[in-house]
Amino acid sequence: MKIITISREFGSGGRELGKRLADILNFAYYDKEIVTAIAEQNQLNENYVEKRLENKFTKSYPITFGRTFYRTSVLEQNTTKLLVAQQHIIKELAAQGENCVIVGRNADILLHDFCPLNLFVYAEMKSKIKRCRYCASENEQLSDREIEKKIKQIDANRAKHRELISNSKWGQKESYHLCINTTDWLIKELAPLIENYSQYWFRRTEQ
Amino acid sequence: MKIITISREFGSGGRELGKRLADILNFAYYDKEIVTAIAEQNQLNENYVEKRLENKFTKSYPITFGRTFYRTSVLEQNTTKLLVAQQHIIKELAAQGENCVIVGRNADILLHDFCPLNLFVYAEMKSKIKRCRYCASENEQLSDREIEKKIKQIDANRAKHRELISNSKWGQKESYHLCINTTDWLIKELAPLIENYSQYWFRRTEQ
Repeated sequence: MKIITISREFGSGGRELGKRLADILNFAYYDKEIVTAIAEQNQLNENYVEKRLENKFTKSYPITFGRTFYRTSVLEQNTTKLLVAQQHIIKELAAQGENCVIVGRNADILLHDFCPLNLFVYAEMKSKIKRCRYCASENEQLSDREIEKKIKQIDANRAKHRELISNSKWGQKESYHLCINTTDWLIKELAPLIENYSQYWFRRTEQ
Repeated sequence: MKIITISREFGSGGRELGKRLADILNFAYYDKEIVTAIAEQNQLNENYVEKRLENKFTKSYPITFGRTFYRTSVLEQNTTKLLVAQQHIIKELAAQGENCVIVGRNADILLHDFCPLNLFVYAEMKSKIKRCRYCASENEQLSDREIEKKIKQIDANRAKHRELISNSKWGQKESYHLCINTTDWLIKELAPLIENYSQYWFRRTEQ
């Protein structure tokens, strides 16, 4: 079984790269599908689940899952439950044995035993702002400064979520097999190159 | 003109990757050639030049080149002169207009105006130790611990040299277009993949 995990800075095009890789390689693609599964299993609204999973933690947040919380809010307790549910679902998906691409959600850590190919996708801030603006809906009219703030906030939360389950730092190149700067790239041009690399990477690990 | 700069952790195979890339792409390859040129221009021994260029700086070392030193040793003054000579030679080589691969020596910073493709090559410590042991001469019998110490020392010096001419940190992924983890890879297998990426990268920047 072959698994590619994609960790990415918000606005770097990591999600698009993951989707395109999955398409070219004919792999399953898991991203929002995970949110949908959590929502269904817990009879919750998808938007609510998604929002809570991207939520910021306070410093008082306990590191260990599954213990009783006294100092955290109900919202944070709910987030923890959803994060635990997410971990289970990601492991279940991997255990199905299908080749797949999983975007975000610390899948590189969670699926360590499956020896996934771990990619990190990043870009210069100006490039990320441009991409966010391009992808934004018409109703979402943010200034560059507001977009930058949003990017930094989301990435800080991702780093924080990783800290809960790992000693390795989010975005630190040592945790990944390849770190790809997408500044000025069209993802559709980049995808076949990374697909080529991935094919060789899997061939090598199979030996 | 196309320039590829390769920054690398000691023992990661960055030099071999650079050489192989140059061969496949039919680019000029500049590495020890730079040391030879400095030695010739300054009528010095090559080994001496190489050793001084990898030398450790003390904290009292001034940031600005070309000023008078009162607190540094003669050896450090010589190192500065050689670093300045190295900068000139790297810029001269680039100005010749030939497609080339330059390994190390902060070429990514020095040649910024030529818009080079900047790669960073790294690996897990165990992999770097293995590679160092494989490449070592028969006379050089170091323990793993000694090799690790040497690797860390050389890389610390590289980081220090970069600090002298740049605000960006050595090895920080943001400074590079692609960061390649060579752990468990054979460089000869990796080289064609990076060559493929490089061809597209240059095609894209020419547009």
